Amino acid sequence: MISLPERVHVYEVGPRDGLQNESVSLPTSVKVEFIDRLARTGLPYVEASSFVHPRWIPQLADAEAVFEELPRRDRVRYGALVPNMHGLKRAATAGLDSYALFVSASELHNHKNLNRSIDESLGYIAAITDALKGMDVWIRGYVSMVWGSPFGDEVTVADVVRVCRRLLDLGIDQISLGDTVGHATPRSVQERLSVLLQEIPVDRVALHFHDTRGTALANVVAGLDSGVRVFDGAVGGLGGCPYADGASGNLATEDLVQMLHAMGIHTGVDLDDLVDCAAFIERKLGKKLPSHWLRACRGPYRQ
Amino acid sequence: MISLPERVHVYEVGPRDGLQNESVSLPTSVKVEFIDRLARTGLPYVEASSFVHPRWIPQLADAEAVFEELPRRDRVRYGALVPNMHGLKRAATAGLDSYALFVSASELHNHKNLNRSIDESLGYIAAITDALKGMDVWIRGYVSMVWGSPFGDEVTVADVVRVCRRLLDLGIDQISLGDTVGHATPRSVQERLSVLLQEIPVDRVALHFHDTRGTALANVVAGLDSGVRVFDGAVGGLGGCPYADGASGNLATEDLVQMLHAMGIHTGVDLDDLVDCAAFIERKLGKKLPSHWLRACRGPYRQ
Repeated sequence: MISLPERVHVYEVGPRDGLQNESVSLPTSVKVEFIDRLARTGLPYVEASSFVHPRWIPQLADAEAVFEELPRRDRVRYGALVPNMHGLKRAATAGLDSYALFVSASELHNHKNLNRSIDESLGYIAAITDALKGMDVWIRGYVSMVWGSPFGDEVTVADVVRVCRRLLDLGIDQISLGDTVGHATPRSVQERLSVLLQEIPVDRVALHFHDTRGTALANVVAGLDSGVRVFDGAVGGLGGCPYADGASGNLATEDLVQMLHAMGIHTGVDLDDLVDCAAFIERKLGKKLPSHWLRACRGPYRQ
Repeated sequence: MISLPERVHVYEVGPRDGLQNESVSLPTSVKVEFIDRLARTGLPYVEASSFVHPRWIPQLADAEAVFEELPRRDRVRYGALVPNMHGLKRAATAGLDSYALFVSASELHNHKNLNRSIDESLGYIAAITDALKGMDVWIRGYVSMVWGSPFGDEVTVADVVRVCRRLLDLGIDQISLGDTVGHATPRSVQERLSVLLQEIPVDRVALHFHDTRGTALANVVAGLDSGVRVFDGAVGGLGGCPYADGASGNLATEDLVQMLHAMGIHTGVDLDDLVDCAAFIERKLGKKLPSHWLRACRGPYRQ
């Protein structure tokens, strides 16, 4: 029998990881409303924007303005992605609760995506964690391509372990293991976790699945059975798949929460409010989002 | 750890369960080509049509012609749905290898769908199995709404057990347990199977999931862990969801086979050929199908 817990923590990354992959740039006021709606559903964490240079992600160029205008709700941690010391300076007055730092488990992907080696990226991360020392902030480390890379290079579990250990040594609070291209299966999730969880305490681990192949929720179940209790989602399935135009990308948060609730697992999230958020951002983007539960609740997409 | 087998049998129901829910009526020659392409992928079973009265399912009114024109491949069982003695008469000269018979676990759904009680349906099935006695044919029984009904009536596991036991008593070779509206979760799949498999030998059971809520593959994993080795799919995710316009319906066979192969589980099916079948029928229907793997392989749908 598959082992399931009583409670799971759902982390929302749609306003950052979703919107950065959408071609439309939304007005700051829409983003602020979107993030605030998400915060009011009961989600414990909302990743609100990114301090990556606007040249690379123009859709999130207004990160400072978003954080300035954003009302803060109790019991919600507001995070943003910070790629380097320049981003850290921009974020300095934003009042982040959480800093999201990023490195790939694939050397080739790290080079193509960030134009530097994994070790150089870990150096950038070390500089940031050093600068944050003594401040009352929480730090989340994203490791991407944990279950394979779109470039065909092999990512071994030893590669992943090495990066994760280094992140823990640097004082990262939580590591989000990303199946960035949706290659993971329940078997490979359990195989990698059986090694990784000998090196990383399970309460420091989150799982971040993409639904490119329709396997995201199956992988969540494998992760639950392996003892993980934190899962990422992007409401609506925002963000598509940057490696396969027209395909699903991020796991839709409402698909995740629906399945968890249907299994009697508590999340603290109001599912109806979450569907409202998905419908809201779908309307604002003017395009059909890949969420299953949104469609099941609201019928066909009409512009 | 989730328990996984070395081999799984994938049954294709798209030409029947899929096309009966599509609004377009395809020419017989297209259906014959579609079914034959599917048979050549290595699938052990293709449900080719339905002998339900054309008044109810005009899309499959040409069942006799389909079976007359269909070339037969070795190691493939060709089946069709037969609802009653009238359908059995129509099917008599079609040369079916397999007769698919149908009953709901929900009294209310059986009434609304078939305009008769479950016991009356079981009476129709008894008449058919009686007529088939002594013939060298295989009989598949579909039990729908095993994990809940769209009409809100409770379907207990005892209801399901009762119907399944009766089907076995009538000589049905295999029972396909259907989550017809996509309400099942990995937990409810394992809960129901833990009771059902005390009553039905596991090698007589197939599972038929719908991806309405994105949980189909997660449910497959739960079924595998519970020991089931036969799973239904409809290529392309054909058929949509009759209860939620615009939502996903049948689990796409290529999504199922992709996940199984990626876990090292043998199916005997050529996945590339299967994607060709999905692309073929998508083109012929002139509408985007909900399959994940088709999109990941072929990019965005363009008419």
